[in-house]
Amino acid sequence: MSTGTDSEQQAAIDDLKRASAEVAAAQLRDGMIVGLGSGSTARFAVEAIAKRVQAGLRIIGIPTSEQTASLAVERGIALSTLGEYSDIEVTIDGADEVELDTLHLIKGGGGNQLREKIVAAASRRLVIIVDERKLVKKLGSRAPVPVEVAQFGWQATARHLTGRGAAPVLRVGADGKPYITDGGNYILDCGFGSIDDPAALQRELDATVGVMEHGLFIGMTSQVLIGTGEGVKQLEGGAAR
Amino acid sequence: MSTGTDSEQQAAIDDLKRASAEVAAAQLRDGMIVGLGSGSTARFAVEAIAKRVQAGLRIIGIPTSEQTASLAVERGIALSTLGEYSDIEVTIDGADEVELDTLHLIKGGGGNQLREKIVAAASRRLVIIVDERKLVKKLGSRAPVPVEVAQFGWQATARHLTGRGAAPVLRVGADGKPYITDGGNYILDCGFGSIDDPAALQRELDATVGVMEHGLFIGMTSQVLIGTGEGVKQLEGGAAR
Repeated sequence: MSTGTDSEQQAAIDDLKRASAEVAAAQLRDGMIVGLGSGSTARFAVEAIAKRVQAGLRIIGIPTSEQTASLAVERGIALSTLGEYSDIEVTIDGADEVELDTLHLIKGGGGNQLREKIVAAASRRLVIIVDERKLVKKLGSRAPVPVEVAQFGWQATARHLTGRGAAPVLRVGADGKPYITDGGNYILDCGFGSIDDPAALQRELDATVGVMEHGLFIGMTSQVLIGTGEGVKQLEGGAAR
Repeated sequence: MSTGTDSEQQAAIDDLKRASAEVAAAQLRDGMIVGLGSGSTARFAVEAIAKRVQAGLRIIGIPTSEQTASLAVERGIALSTLGEYSDIEVTIDGADEVELDTLHLIKGGGGNQLREKIVAAASRRLVIIVDERKLVKKLGSRAPVPVEVAQFGWQATARHLTGRGAAPVLRVGADGKPYITDGGNYILDCGFGSIDDPAALQRELDATVGVMEHGLFIGMTSQVLIGTGEGVKQLEGGAAR
């Protein structure tokens, strides 16, 4: 369905993602334990890391999804688990939105936010690679917040979220059936509109019974690498922990 | 393995549980949607409700576990789901500990705290039936707090909990393998000792990445019915919502 122009645009965006992925991969050193993100942008990070591994870098990757694990194995990256290594030096991942002033994130459009957040929380540094379309002044401007909820009673949970100002939409797969996460849960894509206080919203979501996890990543980002027409720009935040 | 004395004691405790279950069941009226708890005490509630149903009471039960659903069906209680009825008049359930001054609870020794909490959160009233051994001055005095965690990276989550003063123990089943909840998660039984500020601990647990749900029920209890040698005593709390 894509026109020539669309696919040219996509190729240009992919080039920007690839450039920021390579800057991220260049930070890795021998012996590091590295969290591997999921989704279309994080894929470029896995490719960039694989290139360095093929050139002799020795690292161990901790994948955040089955797709990332498959790709990493295919490309020759050694993998392990959080059970073996619960202390990760750096995780490289993408994001759906990055708030400019705070580097707070919305993640999970790809449906992997639970594992991505668990790996990020176990990481000393979280490096986010994006193209500049993902930068926003306020979170929620473009992307809904993916909220992972227990299948049991999800309608009641959706009602609680509606009461908190969300417009929850049950995510469905290509087959029209509810999308089921790696953890066996549903996702409610919650349009909150532009979010004034992401930390307060995080606390509300954390406290909502039936919510298993959500795509707000508050105060976790160490660095954002942004592919732009004028090279890869860099924003520094606090450490992941 | 039980001696005559032990089983006599057990029978006496069962009588106390049955008495408080009957007082709880006596509150039901025709047409009510009723949450049905899980575990050894809640079982008595299902039996007491079934007795009233057999005598003509018409209610619809929302079960919190497969075991409760089976028992209710066997006893002739009509069942439905939170999908059909997200507004429950009253839920009757047991608890592992009840804090005397606040009626805050620890629940989930039976491994059903996620579904029990979802149903309780959808209920106008939460009625707790216990025998008097479950009453404590401070939560955590007798029971650990069951914390349901994602299988993925559970070791990293256990490390975070240890940093928050828990002594997490992975719950195992009779087969020696990790116990898996209805939601597909593990349980870490977290000994915090006597808990000074349950609401603060609740916020910490809610905010811990990898924690799916936990057994602290704060400010949810409407009424506690306590089976004692001198009859069923009654403590009143705030509404469930």
